[in-house]
Amino acid sequence: MPQPTPSAIKAAVQVQRAAMQALFDQLRLDGLDEPGVSRDPYGAGEQRAHATVTLAAEAMGLEISHDDAANLYMTLPGRDRSAPVLVIGSHLDSVPHGGNFDGAAGVLAGLATVGGLRAMGLTPECDIVVMGIRAEESVWFQVSYIGSRGSLGALPDGALDVRRVDTGRTLADHIAECGGNPDALRARTRHFDPSRIRAYLELHIEQAPSLVEARRPVAVCTGIPGNFRFTEAWIEGRADHVGTPRRFRHDAATAGAEFAVALDTLWADYEARGVPMACTLGRFHTDPAVHGLTIVPGSFHFSLDVRAYDEGVLAELEDKVGRIIDGIEQRRAVRFHLGQKARAAVGIVDPGIKAELGTAAEAQGIPVLHIGSPASHDAAAFAAAGVPMGMIFTRNENGSHNPYEAMTIDDFLDGSTVLLQWVMLTQKLSVTSGAE
Amino acid sequence: MPQPTPSAIKAAVQVQRAAMQALFDQLRLDGLDEPGVSRDPYGAGEQRAHATVTLAAEAMGLEISHDDAANLYMTLPGRDRSAPVLVIGSHLDSVPHGGNFDGAAGVLAGLATVGGLRAMGLTPECDIVVMGIRAEESVWFQVSYIGSRGSLGALPDGALDVRRVDTGRTLADHIAECGGNPDALRARTRHFDPSRIRAYLELHIEQAPSLVEARRPVAVCTGIPGNFRFTEAWIEGRADHVGTPRRFRHDAATAGAEFAVALDTLWADYEARGVPMACTLGRFHTDPAVHGLTIVPGSFHFSLDVRAYDEGVLAELEDKVGRIIDGIEQRRAVRFHLGQKARAAVGIVDPGIKAELGTAAEAQGIPVLHIGSPASHDAAAFAAAGVPMGMIFTRNENGSHNPYEAMTIDDFLDGSTVLLQWVMLTQKLSVTSGAE
Repeated sequence: MPQPTPSAIKAAVQVQRAAMQALFDQLRLDGLDEPGVSRDPYGAGEQRAHATVTLAAEAMGLEISHDDAANLYMTLPGRDRSAPVLVIGSHLDSVPHGGNFDGAAGVLAGLATVGGLRAMGLTPECDIVVMGIRAEESVWFQVSYIGSRGSLGALPDGALDVRRVDTGRTLADHIAECGGNPDALRARTRHFDPSRIRAYLELHIEQAPSLVEARRPVAVCTGIPGNFRFTEAWIEGRADHVGTPRRFRHDAATAGAEFAVALDTLWADYEARGVPMACTLGRFHTDPAVHGLTIVPGSFHFSLDVRAYDEGVLAELEDKVGRIIDGIEQRRAVRFHLGQKARAAVGIVDPGIKAELGTAAEAQGIPVLHIGSPASHDAAAFAAAGVPMGMIFTRNENGSHNPYEAMTIDDFLDGSTVLLQWVMLTQKLSVTSGAE
Repeated sequence: MPQPTPSAIKAAVQVQRAAMQALFDQLRLDGLDEPGVSRDPYGAGEQRAHATVTLAAEAMGLEISHDDAANLYMTLPGRDRSAPVLVIGSHLDSVPHGGNFDGAAGVLAGLATVGGLRAMGLTPECDIVVMGIRAEESVWFQVSYIGSRGSLGALPDGALDVRRVDTGRTLADHIAECGGNPDALRARTRHFDPSRIRAYLELHIEQAPSLVEARRPVAVCTGIPGNFRFTEAWIEGRADHVGTPRRFRHDAATAGAEFAVALDTLWADYEARGVPMACTLGRFHTDPAVHGLTIVPGSFHFSLDVRAYDEGVLAELEDKVGRIIDGIEQRRAVRFHLGQKARAAVGIVDPGIKAELGTAAEAQGIPVLHIGSPASHDAAAFAAAGVPMGMIFTRNENGSHNPYEAMTIDDFLDGSTVLLQWVMLTQKLSVTSGAE
């Protein structure tokens, strides 16, 4: 059969504009919790989103199924049902009072992709599975990637026993209530053998305004950051009278300030050299129980998240953070207590998929950026399981995790068009029997 | 009459060693509230200290009287009872669980000085009034210098209606209970017409370890700092996702850190040039209600106290603080909200008294430092009323406002000897009639 032209591929996505807009509108109504939307995972908000998306998938003739973690699978059958599958997905939960697009846009992009294939009357060589993933946002259970890791048999120990911060009920309870099987998850069953997944693709709104700044609709992800974190660090100094001369002070807050400025200077240096990283002191404070206008702070508390896209860069940064601390301890006669360190591995984007997504965008004449993901995503769970992974970002003016997320339907359709073009480039497609 | 030799003056103080040590020991027992001592103002702790000191003064034959603020006056009559008086004093209250010397050492130094005159059989030309001042510490009523300002008719508006933080009862209630007359204070009566005070002298433990560092027992005060303060300042930034690239951030905490480091650098510069000042960010914190590991801080709160010993230096510092803020606002896209500014005037030490105290120490062969007071003192209230004022500090290893204050009896006697030598240098003394 002749390969459809880029114009035909674009048209096959564009014809779904009204349907996709209606689906986004319905999801917004389903989750409305002013300001913004709340799609609480394994709760009423997420359930309504699953119901709405399921109805749409059924209308498209996709096969519907679920796994023990109550993830939603909407499958367009391929010619070879036993071949490793292509998964396109994202999550359907949100933070409280979040926006309508963080997560849901990726699920709908999957639907738009398979919808495009159907519009062109094409059958893929393998099953294409659109995945509506559960419980990605860590704010609710303080555990991230519950759905994606659950599907891969990779939930962390004890995760099923954690309680949702608002309901106080366990994750196991919540999963069971939504039709999942926590006992099976406890026994490490998995829906996916990673070797049976050909690739995992995810579209997501960008959580930063890089695309807005560059005036481009779509970006190809170059990597998902790994990080090291100190969640409960503090600096031990000595409380002193407000009039104490400088040379006698062990001022924990000024030591913390010097630490923050040194980290920012380090980051500026990496930024200037084009090495992506980020560094955040989210909690950064004197002790509210004892601080006061006329007391030199005797202790100072902080959390630190340092993220980068290369394990070597992370190791280098950790070394430099240690040296910064050594210097401050010596100069300021204070002592840093870093406490427990947490780590997350870099989520490596498959180089082949990254290149193919660039080629697909070029074929469509859609100008793309190549950027590291600001945040982590379900895609990182698949990459960690050894699945070839790729992501694309769509332009978003106002960050995520807030009611002001802004993605236009045009940019969404451009992102979906890149996805469909990529499927066309990488799959041997045949005309569906019914359309022959 | 022949002027007593420095040795005779020193001996007249040294003979009181055992009595003074016993008086300090009794005060410690009176205030014992482990750890440390608590002499709550216009309460049981301060009352016991007043009773103990009164007994000692009566035993020395001093005249005892009180004013409407219940301050204690212990007077050695001079030849001319109508001449302006010399006041030597300090306060008898303490912070909760404080040390035994902050305040009380200055009252006992007054007793040791008049005791020295009596030991030498000398009558001063004017009354020398040893003053046991009430309620200097601001921690209890959140008002400072209540006793000294009360004696001068200079209590701030509304002060009598404030409530002690622990008892919840008003200052007026507490004063009445201790024999004072709050109605008279409300009518702005005063015990002292400032023009009737020849000079106010105060000995106090140093609140910093400058004397320990310099290995000297005594310092002559060069000034009491004035200050400007922002008690409720904050920085407005924008909360963002932890992965937000650096160039998009409006990080309020890093802006606060840059502010702190800039102030510290400014201070280091003044220190290097020998211009005394101090700068304290006592409260310095992200908002505990919203901060978190994965959120770029959108707001940051701080208090600032900047102190110096010269009004010109204070004005210059305030200007520089403003420029630092301007620069940070521009570089970091944040906005400082400084809120209410409070000021305290510099407490100027009388240049004549300062020089005379130096001469007195030299006559005694006691090596002194000249240092600015780290803290404010009752002496500042007298200076503000136009009374010529001088202070001396005694060596103290461990700061003040804590149970570990450390002043040796030797250093106390050295300080008292300087005071007595100064009285000898500046008063025409005559042999007391009884000793003639």
